[in-house]
Amino acid sequence: MESFIHWLDLCGVGVFAASGALTASRKQMDLVGFCLIATVTGIGGGTLRDLLLDRGAVSWVNDPSTIVLCFAVAAALFFTAHHIESRFRALLWADAVGLAVFCVGGAEISLSAGAPALVAVLMGVMTATFGGILRDVLCAEVPLILRREIYATAAAAGAITYVALETAEAGWIAQVVGFGVGFGARAIGIVTGFSLPTYRSRPGRVYHPS
Amino acid sequence: MESFIHWLDLCGVGVFAASGALTASRKQMDLVGFCLIATVTGIGGGTLRDLLLDRGAVSWVNDPSTIVLCFAVAAALFFTAHHIESRFRALLWADAVGLAVFCVGGAEISLSAGAPALVAVLMGVMTATFGGILRDVLCAEVPLILRREIYATAAAAGAITYVALETAEAGWIAQVVGFGVGFGARAIGIVTGFSLPTYRSRPGRVYHPS
Amino acid sequence: MESFIHWLDLCGVGVFAASGALTASRKQMDLVGFCLIATVTGIGGGTLRDLLLDRGAVSWVNDPSTIVLCFAVAAALFFTAHHIESRFRALLWADAVGLAVFCVGGAEISLSAGAPALVAVLMGVMTATFGGILRDVLCAEVPLILRREIYATAAAAGAITYVALETAEAGWIAQVVGFGVGFGARAIGIVTGFSLPTYRSRPGRVYHPS
Repeated sequence: MESFIHWLDLCGVGVFAASGALTASRKQMDLVGFCLIATVTGIGGGTLRDLLLDRGAVSWVNDPSTIVLCFAVAAALFFTAHHIESRFRALLWADAVGLAVFCVGGAEISLSAGAPALVAVLMGVMTATFGGILRDVLCAEVPLILRREIYATAAAAGAITYVALETAEAGWIAQVVGFGVGFGARAIGIVTGFSLPTYRSRPGRVYHPS
Repeated sequence: MESFIHWLDLCGVGVFAASGALTASRKQMDLVGFCLIATVTGIGGGTLRDLLLDRGAVSWVNDPSTIVLCFAVAAALFFTAHHIESRFRALLWADAVGLAVFCVGGAEISLSAGAPALVAVLMGVMTATFGGILRDVLCAEVPLILRREIYATAAAAGAITYVALETAEAGWIAQVVGFGVGFGARAIGIVTGFSLPTYRSRPGRVYHPS
Repeated sequence: MESFIHWLDLCGVGVFAASGALTASRKQMDLVGFCLIATVTGIGGGTLRDLLLDRGAVSWVNDPSTIVLCFAVAAALFFTAHHIESRFRALLWADAVGLAVFCVGGAEISLSAGAPALVAVLMGVMTATFGGILRDVLCAEVPLILRREIYATAAAAGAITYVALETAEAGWIAQVVGFGVGFGARAIGIVTGFSLPTYRSRPGRVYHPS
């Protein structure tokens, strides 16, 4: 089980690194720029989580395997990304997988560190969104979080589902369903462009369906 | 006394959360977006302070009451902010109260952690401005710190006043006067648009009154 | 030797502070704004490094000498920067010296904290670039890291050189050569505008010489 979580975490790091490399390609960076943006995107969320939970030195300081993974993904995409037809679309989907993995993983590690359920949910959302925010800020892109689609909401849905099922002692089902809910919600956002009711300033129009 | 500080801190978190929710409303976010931006703005400054002082896990990890407050403020404003006539003006004032509370609170906690006076002042300024910076960066707004009004200077004035009076053992007067100076200076900036002499590149015009 | 490293670190803080103050001058800030941006730029990289390595409270919390240095540099430039003919050019060169100092210093402190070589290189690059990124984000400038010149690559070259020579137990030569390689690579970027092969989206044009 422990190794399953580690594998899942590596998977999240890898897809976030890919989304970072794809953003770097949109900015015409060189190979080092690819590696830097990919790594910051891949490890950013987990690093913030480790800092906030005060888990000692962040995990990758003593175990560089995640760094190696990020560099490998960056190098691979530096040479092959031009074969991908719509790189922005690929970026969105890689980001979506990372979001779903990290909203569960961030909540899980917070729970096991003794945090209350509400904090675990917030930490899940932060872990899932922070790497992408760093990527977008570093590359001077509009943060995905500002797109009028389901984004942070997807991370929240995944984290809440996981925490609820985990509290009910659902075992590994909690992780799988949490991931599924988070990824599914984000996928709806990408595919349909559908958004939850957003704020509208005029009275009587607080809710609106699109 | 201890509880007074805790209450004041909650007050600062609440008004910063309100400023975050008002910014989210300007960006047409959904309810989760409101909660996320409100929370990050509300707890950002204190979290940075706790990380830099190495006070163990940041306070809200084990005590989610501040998180609950941020969510409540965000939800309340999601449904009512359209009744506020000038939301940007309201945002400025909420930010000003938070600034004044946190420049004193940040300096206070740094002093009690044994930091020298100069560091306490800097930490007060950072605590007071970091939440708002996160808010503006996440929402891709121009940071308030760049407006040509008294802003960081107000936080510095409040923190310096507090640290000076605290060193003179003025007791609770130090906090009250520090808050008053910080809020007053920022209020002058908002109301009059007056700015301190800013840098001008041409020789002989280094100072200018507006 | 210990004091040489401390002196070198102060030197890096000072030039980064100067680059921050010069950016503040481009944004027409007041004296407090100058001090804040200069300080954040000067200590940003080292602070991130200390947080990630979990070295307890960051160094400047208990020793405000670096803060005093940043304030002094900021105040000096507030009153004299208008004598500098091309402030953007001066900013680029100050940033280059800071980059070269911190890519070596960040890698060195990481190695001495027991981090593997790869992590030390990454930490060197992060230490060298983070202060400048904070500066550019706070001032809403396009991050230097996005300029199509050798930038992060220079930091990586310096850090790799240092780590390789240090592993070969080259003593102080490792630091000097590491600094020289980092600064030289960045200088080539500034002077010639030359960039490494960057990513190009069209097949067959992945490499291009300028």
